Amino acid sequence: MNHRAIQVAAIPESHRDLLERPLIMILATTLPDTTPQATPVWFHFEDGYIYLNTAVGRLKDRAIRANPYVALVVVDPDNSYRYIQIRGPVVEINEEQGRAHIDYLARRYTGAERFTSNPPDQQRVRFKVAPEKVNVMG
Amino acid sequence: MNHRAIQVAAIPESHRDLLERPLIMILATTLPDTTPQATPVWFHFEDGYIYLNTAVGRLKDRAIRANPYVALVVVDPDNSYRYIQIRGPVVEINEEQGRAHIDYLARRYTGAERFTSNPPDQQRVRFKVAPEKVNVMG
Repeated sequence: MNHRAIQVAAIPESHRDLLERPLIMILATTLPDTTPQATPVWFHFEDGYIYLNTAVGRLKDRAIRANPYVALVVVDPDNSYRYIQIRGPVVEINEEQGRAHIDYLARRYTGAERFTSNPPDQQRVRFKVAPEKVNVMG
Repeated sequence: MNHRAIQVAAIPESHRDLLERPLIMILATTLPDTTPQATPVWFHFEDGYIYLNTAVGRLKDRAIRANPYVALVVVDPDNSYRYIQIRGPVVEINEEQGRAHIDYLARRYTGAERFTSNPPDQQRVRFKVAPEKVNVMG
């Protein structure tokens, strides 16, 4: 979906734990009217990419399809002056893996076998984000 | 700077503490190229408005001047499923009060007498945000 060469930045070892732990990430998107939106979300980090999940048709989903570039922040819950900021393109929008991925995230975050907070037939979507720009503090 | 009628939403009593405590807020802006940016910031809440601060010329400052509408999130540090999301216009950009305001925030957040993390002659700017749309969770 994105044909320019994508630079994937290395995650500094000093802050890698913020992506490997099941912490809350803030996802910022640009809405179609160009105003910003920000929401706490679950995520997971694998092979250098960040994976997020939402329900198809929700505001985040519509925003990302219209403008597939996001900003992410994870703040250390034990020290709010220590954080990682990531900006980058959404390089894959995957509905086939959406349900399996939200079940995976529910296990990761809650220990539940699967995600039951929404109807089981709700269409989910997984977003894959390439960390193009990375800043760390603290 | 904004001549349309601004709706200021009430903050639900249930989540008002998230604005009254010196917690870290995530500020999301839209950059001039329409991609989003997100940063943890200090803030204070007074008479229904949210006040933020940065250095003049910094990315956040340039983004807000180009597109004076922001999204804000405060997550309860004791329960990350409890949070408040706010979206709204920046209704005042005030450089005269910028230095006094960052000193006030430094006292609020660190107990220091004034803000000393940056040069004392650094030009600061205070943003006043009207909470137009408010969502709470948890």
